[in-house]
Amino acid sequence: MPGTSAAPEPDPGMIFDTLNAYQRSVALKAAIELDVFTEVARGSRSAEAIAKAVKASSRGIRILCDYLVISGFLAKSGEEYSLTVNSATFLDRSSPAYFGSIAKFLLDPRMIAPFLNLTDVVRNGTTTLPGDGTVSHDNPIWVDFARQMAPMVIPGAGEVAELVAGDGEVRVLDIAAGHGLYGIMIAKQNPKAQITALDWPNVLAVATENAAKFGVADRHRLLPGDAFEVEFGGPYDVVMVTNFFHHFDPPTCAGLMRKIRASLAPGGRCVTLDFVPNDDRVSPPMAAGFAMMMLGTTAAGDAYTFAEYERLFGEAGFASSESHALHRAVQTMIVSKA
Amino acid sequence: MPGTSAAPEPDPGMIFDTLNAYQRSVALKAAIELDVFTEVARGSRSAEAIAKAVKASSRGIRILCDYLVISGFLAKSGEEYSLTVNSATFLDRSSPAYFGSIAKFLLDPRMIAPFLNLTDVVRNGTTTLPGDGTVSHDNPIWVDFARQMAPMVIPGAGEVAELVAGDGEVRVLDIAAGHGLYGIMIAKQNPKAQITALDWPNVLAVATENAAKFGVADRHRLLPGDAFEVEFGGPYDVVMVTNFFHHFDPPTCAGLMRKIRASLAPGGRCVTLDFVPNDDRVSPPMAAGFAMMMLGTTAAGDAYTFAEYERLFGEAGFASSESHALHRAVQTMIVSKA
Repeated sequence: MPGTSAAPEPDPGMIFDTLNAYQRSVALKAAIELDVFTEVARGSRSAEAIAKAVKASSRGIRILCDYLVISGFLAKSGEEYSLTVNSATFLDRSSPAYFGSIAKFLLDPRMIAPFLNLTDVVRNGTTTLPGDGTVSHDNPIWVDFARQMAPMVIPGAGEVAELVAGDGEVRVLDIAAGHGLYGIMIAKQNPKAQITALDWPNVLAVATENAAKFGVADRHRLLPGDAFEVEFGGPYDVVMVTNFFHHFDPPTCAGLMRKIRASLAPGGRCVTLDFVPNDDRVSPPMAAGFAMMMLGTTAAGDAYTFAEYERLFGEAGFASSESHALHRAVQTMIVSKA
Repeated sequence: MPGTSAAPEPDPGMIFDTLNAYQRSVALKAAIELDVFTEVARGSRSAEAIAKAVKASSRGIRILCDYLVISGFLAKSGEEYSLTVNSATFLDRSSPAYFGSIAKFLLDPRMIAPFLNLTDVVRNGTTTLPGDGTVSHDNPIWVDFARQMAPMVIPGAGEVAELVAGDGEVRVLDIAAGHGLYGIMIAKQNPKAQITALDWPNVLAVATENAAKFGVADRHRLLPGDAFEVEFGGPYDVVMVTNFFHHFDPPTCAGLMRKIRASLAPGGRCVTLDFVPNDDRVSPPMAAGFAMMMLGTTAAGDAYTFAEYERLFGEAGFASSESHALHRAVQTMIVSKA
């Protein structure tokens, strides 16, 4: 009785399936932690062989691998398992696009703690995490995140860079730079671009590593601090705000937008990259569902619609905002002109 | 970038979606605990109205309800939410088929604890729960389960009863009776049936309540104890083993089958109801995926295939086994003749 909401008949299976959906998360995390995908890529095919290679029980590996077949991360033929396109690309440690380490961040006990008490979060309307939740100053979670997300964001960061880097001199402020890759990809795309990466000092260490790795360290300056407190300097031609506004309530976003506008040169642009649901707030599923992540882990964050961004940027004095769907990222790019 | 395993292009969204799937479980649990579905059924339609009715924050309820739309448990039109067929049938407390209380059992912190350490479980091949996991003697979790599952199992128990109750005198042993409904439905179907319900004493209290409720208390006898230790008495014409074999390893199942066979009258039958995957062990998804529940919560349980049941019953001296798909339950019925 596999469930779909379109089924005309009541389907209790859908309720079981949803209440047990957490097992899909932890099964994928366990397989990543045990490096099951890497071992299958290396040629271990049977449950016995995989179990031996990853030093785990054969009962555990057999049930885990069958479960991964059901959830679409392995294929099975007879008693032999093989990788799917997704697991071969992203979950085999020897693949350049590997980002299995993201499981450690997304299922960090600190991240999921508020969700284990989601009833209280909904009742009170704010995370049960202390302070401002995940956005608290110097939360070490962001250092891990900056490292783990890097392989994953490069395609989208490249696409954004192609759209905004231009070919003349361009001064870029990269707010809450994290891994720094949005700014770094602009520097890589345009040899005349100068990047200023703003983030907490512990996170900027990761951006500095990446700037060196991509050969743009000489055009990558650091501005350590909190985006709401530190002087931006400038003027800038482009201010990047990637995966950041969603952590805050609308007045806080508007305040930051005003500060950004004040730092822009004439003709400058603010480039937002974020999860932007349609006006119905329930589509597309990944962008709309991101609001739940913000409910669980922040005091007042949200997944804002384009209409909300347009209004907030307008109130902050921006002349216009335009939305751009991206092919290599689930987020939407919004370009707001000063 | 919604994910499907059939996608020819690598889709990192599928990995995020799976690692965040636990949010679907906790969101549904929170909505049930806050009685959101009952309040929508009573006429609260907007996030504000629902929040007021369930005494929760409007930010929390808006994000939760949008998320429930994405996961198929609410519909949305403009700013108004409404129930789906499934939520109206099973999650509105005023519906006779309500079984929202199952969320409390399935997401009990004791149940999910081993899954939060699934890597260790897979490594060691056994639950991290103490003793024999959920099957430990007198585990109070089963009293809750017996109560919460009752409304849910009645349709399937009725279907099984129609298939096995007959119309002559029939002596039925209901092993690990729990809520008792499999035996009770046979008694209700056939006025000449005599039921002996075996379970731990604390759980049998629930079966006794249900026997009275369905008007068969005079033909419902109790046999308190552990199925592996207590004398069955008999002889019986039918021995019911519902949702029980999956907790144990094959030798333990075979031992119980031998004990059952010894308690059967000539021509008697053992009726198994359980999650029975196909030989590939990865289909159908719900029966096959149940093995993960057993990996997490038991020492050596599994979802056995029909071929395995057939072999084990054969080794225990049964003449034949037949498999019956059910329409009103996700489990399969296996009838084994002595």
